[in-house]
Amino acid sequence: MGRPPVPLLSTDLIASIAMDLVNATGGFTIPELARTLKVSPSSLYNHVSGRDQIVELLRERAMSEVVLPADADLPWTETVAGIMRSYRRSYARYPRLIPLLTAHAVNSSHAFTMYNALATTLHRAGFTDADILRAITLMDCFVLGSALDLAAPVEPWEAGAEVGPELAAALATGGPKPARADDAFDFGLDVLLRGLADLASR
Amino acid sequence: MGRPPVPLLSTDLIASIAMDLVNATGGFTIPELARTLKVSPSSLYNHVSGRDQIVELLRERAMSEVVLPADADLPWTETVAGIMRSYRRSYARYPRLIPLLTAHAVNSSHAFTMYNALATTLHRAGFTDADILRAITLMDCFVLGSALDLAAPVEPWEAGAEVGPELAAALATGGPKPARADDAFDFGLDVLLRGLADLASR
Repeated sequence: MGRPPVPLLSTDLIASIAMDLVNATGGFTIPELARTLKVSPSSLYNHVSGRDQIVELLRERAMSEVVLPADADLPWTETVAGIMRSYRRSYARYPRLIPLLTAHAVNSSHAFTMYNALATTLHRAGFTDADILRAITLMDCFVLGSALDLAAPVEPWEAGAEVGPELAAALATGGPKPARADDAFDFGLDVLLRGLADLASR
Repeated sequence: MGRPPVPLLSTDLIASIAMDLVNATGGFTIPELARTLKVSPSSLYNHVSGRDQIVELLRERAMSEVVLPADADLPWTETVAGIMRSYRRSYARYPRLIPLLTAHAVNSSHAFTMYNALATTLHRAGFTDADILRAITLMDCFVLGSALDLAAPVEPWEAGAEVGPELAAALATGGPKPARADDAFDFGLDVLLRGLADLASR
C-alpha cells in the first residue's frame, strides 16, 4: 500500500514528450511538459538544466541520421552533396521542429561534427574563411527549406484562373510526392554546387 | 442598460488575431481564435469559410511587401534577384508563420502574381517547363530558409571545444546581425543565379 508509482522521469523521456508537443503544436513550454508528464516543473530540473538543453536534445534527434562520407578522397562537391542529402532526410522527419531549432544557438555534438566536416571540406576546396561561413549558411537555408517542402501538401498550388500559362505548364510537369520534392532537391543541389564550383574556380 | 458591446468582428480582425497567435505560439486553432476574440466559433464562420481561408489571409500578409520589378528589359537574373530579395524581406517579418504556410496549398492572389512573374521570367530565359518548376521550388526553399535564418540568434553557434580550426576560422569572420544574414543571403543568391545561368547555357 505504498505511494502511487512515480513516473520514471529521464532525460530521454523528457525529450520524447517535448518532441511530441512540437509535432502536435509547433512548440513546448516547461509547464506544458510537466503537465503532460504529470510531474512538477521542479522535478524536470533534476534531469535537464532548462529549456535550452531540451531544444539541444531535440536537435540531436533531428540530426541523428546525418551521415558523413567516410571517403576523404572524394571530390569536395560529392562530399558536400552526401552530407546535404542525409541532412535533409534527417530533418524532414520533424518539419515543425525547424523554426524552433533555427531560433536557438547550436550547441550539440552531432551538429558540430557536421559543420566541422563541411568547413574542412570547403577549406580543402580553396574557399576563404568568410565564404565558408556564407556557404554553410546557404546550405543550412536550402536544406531546412527543402525539409519543410518535403512536408508540404501533395498539391502545392491550388489550380485556378490566376495561374498564367507559363506557371500552368511548369506545374503540369510535377510528379507525385515525395518524388517531386526529391527531384526538386536534387536539381537545387546541382544548381548550388555548380554555383559554388564556379565561385571556387575564380 | 443594453447588452454589453459586441466585438466588431471582421475578416481583417480575425486574420490579425490569428497572426498574433502564430507569432506567440507557432499556430492557431478555431477554438483558440474564438476564445481570444470572445465570440463563438460559429460567428467566425460568418466572416471566413474556415481555417484554410485564414491561412491564405496570413499568406497574403506575409507576401504584402513582395515587389515585382517593373522593367521588362532587365536581364532575367536581375529580375529573379529583385523578386527574391523582396520575397525574403517580406517573409522575414513572420518567421513562425513559415511552417504553417508551407504545410498548406497556395491559394492567394499575391502568391500567384509572384509565381507567375518567376515562371514568365524563367521561360523567357529558356528553361524547360520541368526546370521552371524545379527552379521555383529551389527559390522557395532558399528564401524561406533564409527568412528563418534572419530570425536566428545573434550567435548562431555556441563557442566550444567541439569547434574545429576550419569552422572556428569561418565563424570568426561573421559580422553582427542582421548584416551577417544579409551578406549570407546575397552570397547565396549569387551562387544560385550562377548555378542557374550555368544550367541555362548548356
